Amino acid sequence: MSVLKIQAMKKPQETALAASLPASVPFVGPETLERQRNVSFEARIGANESVFGPSPKVLETIKAASAEAWMYGDPENYDLRHALAQSLGLRPDEVVVGEGIDSLLGYLVRLYVGPGEHAVTSLGAYPTFNYHVTGYGGEVRAVPYAQDKEDIDGLLAAARDTGAKMIYLANPDNPMGSWHSAEIIEAMIANLPAGCLLLLDEAYVEFAPRGAVPAIDMSDPRVVRMRTFSKAHGLAGMRVGYAIGERTVIRGFEKIRNHFGMSRVSQAAALAALSDPGWVDVVREKVEASRARIAAIATANGLTPLPSATNFVTIDCGQGDAFAKAVLSELVARNVFVRMPFAAPGNRCIRVSAGAEAELDVFEHALPLALDAAKNG
Amino acid sequence: MSVLKIQAMKKPQETALAASLPASVPFVGPETLERQRNVSFEARIGANESVFGPSPKVLETIKAASAEAWMYGDPENYDLRHALAQSLGLRPDEVVVGEGIDSLLGYLVRLYVGPGEHAVTSLGAYPTFNYHVTGYGGEVRAVPYAQDKEDIDGLLAAARDTGAKMIYLANPDNPMGSWHSAEIIEAMIANLPAGCLLLLDEAYVEFAPRGAVPAIDMSDPRVVRMRTFSKAHGLAGMRVGYAIGERTVIRGFEKIRNHFGMSRVSQAAALAALSDPGWVDVVREKVEASRARIAAIATANGLTPLPSATNFVTIDCGQGDAFAKAVLSELVARNVFVRMPFAAPGNRCIRVSAGAEAELDVFEHALPLALDAAKNG
Repeated sequence: MSVLKIQAMKKPQETALAASLPASVPFVGPETLERQRNVSFEARIGANESVFGPSPKVLETIKAASAEAWMYGDPENYDLRHALAQSLGLRPDEVVVGEGIDSLLGYLVRLYVGPGEHAVTSLGAYPTFNYHVTGYGGEVRAVPYAQDKEDIDGLLAAARDTGAKMIYLANPDNPMGSWHSAEIIEAMIANLPAGCLLLLDEAYVEFAPRGAVPAIDMSDPRVVRMRTFSKAHGLAGMRVGYAIGERTVIRGFEKIRNHFGMSRVSQAAALAALSDPGWVDVVREKVEASRARIAAIATANGLTPLPSATNFVTIDCGQGDAFAKAVLSELVARNVFVRMPFAAPGNRCIRVSAGAEAELDVFEHALPLALDAAKNG
Repeated sequence: MSVLKIQAMKKPQETALAASLPASVPFVGPETLERQRNVSFEARIGANESVFGPSPKVLETIKAASAEAWMYGDPENYDLRHALAQSLGLRPDEVVVGEGIDSLLGYLVRLYVGPGEHAVTSLGAYPTFNYHVTGYGGEVRAVPYAQDKEDIDGLLAAARDTGAKMIYLANPDNPMGSWHSAEIIEAMIANLPAGCLLLLDEAYVEFAPRGAVPAIDMSDPRVVRMRTFSKAHGLAGMRVGYAIGERTVIRGFEKIRNHFGMSRVSQAAALAALSDPGWVDVVREKVEASRARIAAIATANGLTPLPSATNFVTIDCGQGDAFAKAVLSELVARNVFVRMPFAAPGNRCIRVSAGAEAELDVFEHALPLALDAAKNG
């Protein structure tokens, strides 16, 4: 036998599942685009981050907490879980903290969706959910949006058809910015097929109208809600998310989560953010003003801003996906980082995150130029 | 049918694997003990953290990076991977960055150890490896230590017996502080059974004698090495680890890792740490002095310090596991946080992390009292 053959035999083999997976990032970061173009964005308004940053008190906390950077974070996230529970009127064992919603999505999928089992989502919704389902050997059934909202009846029907273990729903929705009322969500929960769990992603809940947030019923093991410090709290870079749900469901996370995964500095930052709720009010006002200006800029350029219950505005470019892609490319070429929905019919739109005046000045200047270039491209 | 039965039917069921797992943390954090006792430790020398902290330049970087806390970190960890590659003489695609070694252990196990497949480790070695193997449905075969070192021949034999997909070996070792020479590790690699991957945990590599670190051969897909900023760099609380290996193996992480899992502030901190290698020399000197003092304190109390190539000293208490457990409890009762090996024969010892003068003063005062109490308890 040749040396090469011996070597080949000896090489460790990934599991069949791992070997079947593509090596792919759910989506591309702005830094990658900056490296490709060898220039920094002038307006970073594509990832629904909060350009308004965290509260000044949080910034001070991060600086002070650097003195504790040598210590592992508390694996129980005790202080943060207790503070979250108190702020939400819950028990601490109804809350689990994780390294951003992304990690919690992965944990919940791992707990409930086995190989060959189905999970249902909307076509063009948050791709990281699909990434995790596929990554654990599950099957994704994606239901198209209807009238730029997630199609609740369609999601329920798909869940019944496939015997799905889980439905993913973002309310308010990303990438469309739309939302459903609390009544509709509650009716959806009442109609969940047997054995199906609703993963309700509420990353944008702080920007939602009051009537869009269902009451919190911790007795129902069929609903897990996820929230984050990445949006209204301005801490995307610190990676702090949390899930709330019925306590036996929440206890499941203890079986598989990365117990020492939380940064100690991030724990301190999130705790400080919780103790300064006034900052969220400030951010909400800034976001509302920013959404209004983004909408006005869109309208002035003959485009149609969609209603938004989030910190971004999805803008209908009016001419299908190829045109929207061209507009996006031309904005990027003018150092404006924005994104767009991945699938029809949303991909006739671009998605613009709330920015401060400086970012929106750049956007306002670039948009008509980008539209001209896209039309003549 | 009763309402209760309908409810029971409707409750989502975890996968069979998830349902089979216990809800357990691999080990208990010091904050948990502090809460139980309602008092703070005076000497936190139990988790092999670096009480000497990160470099002052790193502290400045963390403070400055707080201004970027609103932005997601670069999902490619581009700058950090490139800096690591340069410092190690590797290519960037031979390096993957993750949220501490813990997360990278989980990813590698998930890639290679399928349900029912085996992984081999040492009895009483790092429990988080076992946690991940069990968590993905694998079987752990644990080989007892021999002369307080990991038993290389025993590990290889167990891997052959079980057809193991992976062997976990820490060199230098935690919790015993012992090490094997580069020659022995290289011979182990040469004798790996076909299809078996060696996960070489080098968390303590910066404290190892030069002759204990094998040359880095990135052409061999059977070895993945993991390192961290948690120990010598003093950044346990920031969660930055990395794995190095043959590039097709490293590419596997891209299929399953939490791409946006890294804190942006942590990325900046690690990059700053890399650019200040002199700090590791400072820490190494402090650790050597601290180890010498811990050994002297142990000897003065009639105990036997074991040789260490790490930032801790494992101390043989000389009277079996019950006595060592009692000594540990009595130290904790005196506000000294230390840990001990989990399994025989190591559990006749306690494990004391390097401390500054202040921590070791506390330890020196507490140890004879703890020994007396343990003897008379």
